[in-house]
Amino acid sequence: MTRRFALIIDPVGASEERTDYADTFTVVDAAAPALSVGELSTQRGDGVFESIGVVDGHAQEVIPHLERLANSARLCDLPVPDQEQWRQAVTVAASECPAGEGVIKLILSRGVEHGPTPTAWVTAAPASDFRAVREAGVKVVTLDRGYGLDAAERAPWLLLGAKTLSYAVNMAALREAHRRGADDAIFVSSDGFVLEAPTASLILRFGDRFTTPAPTGGILHGTTQLSVYEHLAGRGFDAEYGRIPATDLSRPDAAWLVSSIRLAVPITAVDGAAVSVDHTLTAELNQYLLSPRD
Amino acid sequence: MTRRFALIIDPVGASEERTDYADTFTVVDAAAPALSVGELSTQRGDGVFESIGVVDGHAQEVIPHLERLANSARLCDLPVPDQEQWRQAVTVAASECPAGEGVIKLILSRGVEHGPTPTAWVTAAPASDFRAVREAGVKVVTLDRGYGLDAAERAPWLLLGAKTLSYAVNMAALREAHRRGADDAIFVSSDGFVLEAPTASLILRFGDRFTTPAPTGGILHGTTQLSVYEHLAGRGFDAEYGRIPATDLSRPDAAWLVSSIRLAVPITAVDGAAVSVDHTLTAELNQYLLSPRD
Repeated sequence: MTRRFALIIDPVGASEERTDYADTFTVVDAAAPALSVGELSTQRGDGVFESIGVVDGHAQEVIPHLERLANSARLCDLPVPDQEQWRQAVTVAASECPAGEGVIKLILSRGVEHGPTPTAWVTAAPASDFRAVREAGVKVVTLDRGYGLDAAERAPWLLLGAKTLSYAVNMAALREAHRRGADDAIFVSSDGFVLEAPTASLILRFGDRFTTPAPTGGILHGTTQLSVYEHLAGRGFDAEYGRIPATDLSRPDAAWLVSSIRLAVPITAVDGAAVSVDHTLTAELNQYLLSPRD
Repeated sequence: MTRRFALIIDPVGASEERTDYADTFTVVDAAAPALSVGELSTQRGDGVFESIGVVDGHAQEVIPHLERLANSARLCDLPVPDQEQWRQAVTVAASECPAGEGVIKLILSRGVEHGPTPTAWVTAAPASDFRAVREAGVKVVTLDRGYGLDAAERAPWLLLGAKTLSYAVNMAALREAHRRGADDAIFVSSDGFVLEAPTASLILRFGDRFTTPAPTGGILHGTTQLSVYEHLAGRGFDAEYGRIPATDLSRPDAAWLVSSIRLAVPITAVDGAAVSVDHTLTAELNQYLLSPRD
């Protein structure tokens, strides 16, 4: 596949009894106009999304991604997507991915302004080549997310647990990291706790203990983090969730950013201070993440 | 005009010397597909916008809106729009508006993923009929914005002074207000100061003194608020900016939400407590706001 594949989904009610959704899909030219200027996704960032990794035609962890999409939809008062319809759309999209790594994006938008229904589409494209960065790692800087750790619970309208299309701040944080000579950022709460990266989860290792920020604090629960935790538990490691003070970032025995497409990337420095890299475990994690997972 | 008018702009460098930009505009069918699925406005809410009121074919305060668009672009590291190009696009869009009230939207998006340039477009449409609400007013609830008043200065990557397309939280706040039986919301900082409404500025009146939250606290500087302040100063009133404790919302002599399209709407209640309405001044403000302004 040299170009992007795109499929518009006509969202149907989850109550409808059907087994084949092919007639609700319309393949479109991804390079040609497909969305109207009245789209609320584009006017208001009003919608939710998921990015799914594809390896040799196999879409990774489709159900966890669809469950998170449904959860994001609920948090945004969007109609909850029909899981089977979306699963079939992902299957079609995955079949368009050639050998190697790809990315499938699912987007559920509020729809066209004053329109009757949400707009939904799925795209598939070859992934960027992340093999080098998985070995070399990334330098990160910490950036204040502005919110206290309790903001999510206190103010659900901040949508902190939803993967919305309103990612301008996440993108600005990445640009700020680049300005500071780093590759990526880690958000820290205004009261000094570690949160997440703009497009990845954080896992820290202290001895044989692994820890990641508890998703109660208004961060997204990472599907790749969950998958890595399952793997680590199977290996007999202690893998836990916690409130992690930002000061802990200066002394881990190893640290990773993990996400669905770039997978496990070792952190080599935080705010200019070197972090040691566990090359063996990193390679093993990525080997696992590149194996077929459901 | 019964349907929306839309114009795609081919953004040109601000350094180019030209006086006529007509050949950089492409009129498109606003109801038909015009944007590709790779648009970062739709995938990431990554772009900036403005909404301009139109009265009987006259676009209101075009230059202040274009200046704010440029400021938002700068805060988002987007190429600063060529003011004359956009001004001419607004003129074309305004000429498509019939008698009565309309709305012109300007959108500058990061562009298509991995693409070379931003995407930009302008739409024009009849405005909703806000005459009744300008008389009857709105009930509002206060909602925690999660940020302290100092977040904007401390963390510019939060883009608090930019009018970005990432408006999912603003839309969620309006839904939360409706759930609580109110019509609109007023955001309050986590340290207890009044900020703004999701799509409007707030003006309070105490005796002959008018006050509005200072735009230094990470709120958008409202073009309509500025216009109202100019008018009030001309009438001899004291109109000032301040740090307004949320507790002050319980005791104004009058209060308004002001914005470019809905104009000045009196607040009739805050969190269930009645606020007195100054019908005479409200009518006068809206008469002024509906007169041609540049």
